[in-house]
Amino acid sequence: MHNNTFCIAVLGAGNIGSAVLARLKELDNKILNIEIKKVLVKDKSKDREIEEEILTNNFEEILNDDSIDLVIEVLGGVDPGKGYIESLLSKGKAVITANKDIIADSGPELIKLAQENNTCLYFEAAVAAGIPVLKPLIESLRGEELTRVLGIINGTSNYILTSMEEGSTYEDALSTAQELGYAEPDPTNDVDGIDAKFKAMILSLLCFGVSPNNEAVFTEGISKITKEDFEWASRLDKTIKLVAQIDKNNEGLNARVHPVLIDKKHPLASIRGALNAVVVEGVNINQLVFSGPGAGSEPTASSIIGDVLSACRHLSSNQSNWYPLRDYKGDSKSFENVKSSMFIRLSVKDQPGVLAKISGTFGENNVSIESVIQEGRGETAELVIITHDAKEENLSTSVETIRALSVVDDIDSIIRVYSG
Amino acid sequence: MHNNTFCIAVLGAGNIGSAVLARLKELDNKILNIEIKKVLVKDKSKDREIEEEILTNNFEEILNDDSIDLVIEVLGGVDPGKGYIESLLSKGKAVITANKDIIADSGPELIKLAQENNTCLYFEAAVAAGIPVLKPLIESLRGEELTRVLGIINGTSNYILTSMEEGSTYEDALSTAQELGYAEPDPTNDVDGIDAKFKAMILSLLCFGVSPNNEAVFTEGISKITKEDFEWASRLDKTIKLVAQIDKNNEGLNARVHPVLIDKKHPLASIRGALNAVVVEGVNINQLVFSGPGAGSEPTASSIIGDVLSACRHLSSNQSNWYPLRDYKGDSKSFENVKSSMFIRLSVKDQPGVLAKISGTFGENNVSIESVIQEGRGETAELVIITHDAKEENLSTSVETIRALSVVDDIDSIIRVYSG
Repeated sequence: MHNNTFCIAVLGAGNIGSAVLARLKELDNKILNIEIKKVLVKDKSKDREIEEEILTNNFEEILNDDSIDLVIEVLGGVDPGKGYIESLLSKGKAVITANKDIIADSGPELIKLAQENNTCLYFEAAVAAGIPVLKPLIESLRGEELTRVLGIINGTSNYILTSMEEGSTYEDALSTAQELGYAEPDPTNDVDGIDAKFKAMILSLLCFGVSPNNEAVFTEGISKITKEDFEWASRLDKTIKLVAQIDKNNEGLNARVHPVLIDKKHPLASIRGALNAVVVEGVNINQLVFSGPGAGSEPTASSIIGDVLSACRHLSSNQSNWYPLRDYKGDSKSFENVKSSMFIRLSVKDQPGVLAKISGTFGENNVSIESVIQEGRGETAELVIITHDAKEENLSTSVETIRALSVVDDIDSIIRVYSG
Repeated sequence: MHNNTFCIAVLGAGNIGSAVLARLKELDNKILNIEIKKVLVKDKSKDREIEEEILTNNFEEILNDDSIDLVIEVLGGVDPGKGYIESLLSKGKAVITANKDIIADSGPELIKLAQENNTCLYFEAAVAAGIPVLKPLIESLRGEELTRVLGIINGTSNYILTSMEEGSTYEDALSTAQELGYAEPDPTNDVDGIDAKFKAMILSLLCFGVSPNNEAVFTEGISKITKEDFEWASRLDKTIKLVAQIDKNNEGLNARVHPVLIDKKHPLASIRGALNAVVVEGVNINQLVFSGPGAGSEPTASSIIGDVLSACRHLSSNQSNWYPLRDYKGDSKSFENVKSSMFIRLSVKDQPGVLAKISGTFGENNVSIESVIQEGRGETAELVIITHDAKEENLSTSVETIRALSVVDDIDSIIRVYSG
């Protein structure tokens, strides 16, 4: 039993590091006894509200201090954090990180290192910042056979889509998000689905034991979504969300990130603004949903503090917090073989035979049509087609053939329809 | 480090006990090594799929077997389970129970016993069967300042209300629920909110460190809700849910269970059928929502297995899984002092001055009115009033005075409006 004070070092003292340091002080003497032994910073001379004697710019001081039980890494970026975490785990120190890039890049190796050294590795804040969902996946749900995990795991893009649902244009929604600090000056990582992809790789690792390659995750962002798409979504009693989804079935495992038209009754449809949500589906638990704040330094600090509390209850057991990872042994399923239902909105010439040509093209490619709505607009018509589930490769061949038809002026939008 | 096989005993071999035994066998050799040492049953001669040599009808055999690390209690009812758990914890054995009655009755004492004996006590399945929400409250969120917890934590009543939302009468919905096994032949415990009250007492203990007395929890069931109420709810863009709510604010702590009119955009509004959901609100995490299956032996077994996995990662630490409970030191706030907004539907004489009399009564009792809808129906009119937030005691005085007015034929329904 660890009766003593827990000695902690923090790597980094930026926004999140500072929030964590403040929250650790709040915990101290109330729930457990904590001593902050060292805080690693680049520049010790910078003005901070941290006692000078605990500041260091030398990682080795932390690594070689045997009194330090637990290290919290909040540096950001892969280097030098990844190397630091490896060294710490190898020495048997418990590590907490909020760094999704490091875990998406090297999660399996780092978990293995924690297991081999009978120590702890936690990273609750790396996915869906403030929501305690990874810990249940790692521990409580480790005995469950899971079949699917999906989520809204990028707050910026969800904020933009929610504004668009309320009537904003993409451009206006993005610039408001930037003004409010929800989006970076260069929003690419968020709006193109890249941030969500890295988080999906982590969810896949925890739910199925396999982290798909970066390149193997089909990723499409939200920048092509328009107000008109939301008007159509509303007519169909649906909304549009950027969803990361990992499916495991008889045909294999596939991970993907793209916008979906999703029924308003689905739990993800009501996740608004910068919130995140993760849906976990399995044989015995059917469907679990976890939602909460997906960004911000305070919710992120909450998850890190949650990890501190877990770690301090675990440290004296002298064993890793990790059970063996799940060992999915099936194939990975390429995106071309995934089946999707598709919403396609086209501008076509308003003349006889157009629908026959288009639906004929789908038929030739084994894509059957669920519904068609055609609305005349003078010389042209707007045609909205929703297909039944069909293989992505057949859908994309159909679309390319249709795009080339002389009666088709333009394909205005293509959005997959979530069918869960 | 606990390298060996974990030795487990199970008290009870009913539906849940059998499901747990089957799932333990699935875990064995894959994630950890388990030996089922003993299963306590009343009658050893009953035909079961359990090896005869591990059956016992003598609890002392389990209590005095030093090789047993962990005991799972799934007997049901308070006695003799409560006494068994006390004896086991006192001997330092880890205990898992699914028994909400025992925890609502004696949670604080049992947790104290686990702490004093440096051992573990888990009861994830006692609230919201299959949802891993208590563990985060006990551990990850222990450092958070929480302000409110609310939830749909009775699957039976939610199943009935969902059917009514879809057009069913209360009586039809109840009898379908009984046919499907969602409701007991005597549904009192579920439809009168008693089951939800016990679970609310447990949530209050974990979120605020205090379990209100059974009698102190205002409890109202769903049996007076009508189809007409749902029609009105729909007109107001709301639905009706049986919600357990515990609030902590400057004025004190209050726990209550009653039906509420709740906005369709609130996360609880989309919890349908026999699902459960728990909403946790706090200073830094804002709002977290956990939802999933609220009943059934398989989801219950999933939570128990989750507890087994937590316990087996914890056993060798030789310390309790419990941090000190939160220590709310404020007052408990009596229900009369809680502020609610109220939806009141009345049948009144369709004559001048009626509304003035009724609204005057509210005014005299310091209740202000948010909106009024009056619809003539010949000689009588239907009057729907929604009040602003007002003290429960003022609302109830108003209602009693109004009920006695000669122009009021009947008060058809009174439902509180959730304002979060």
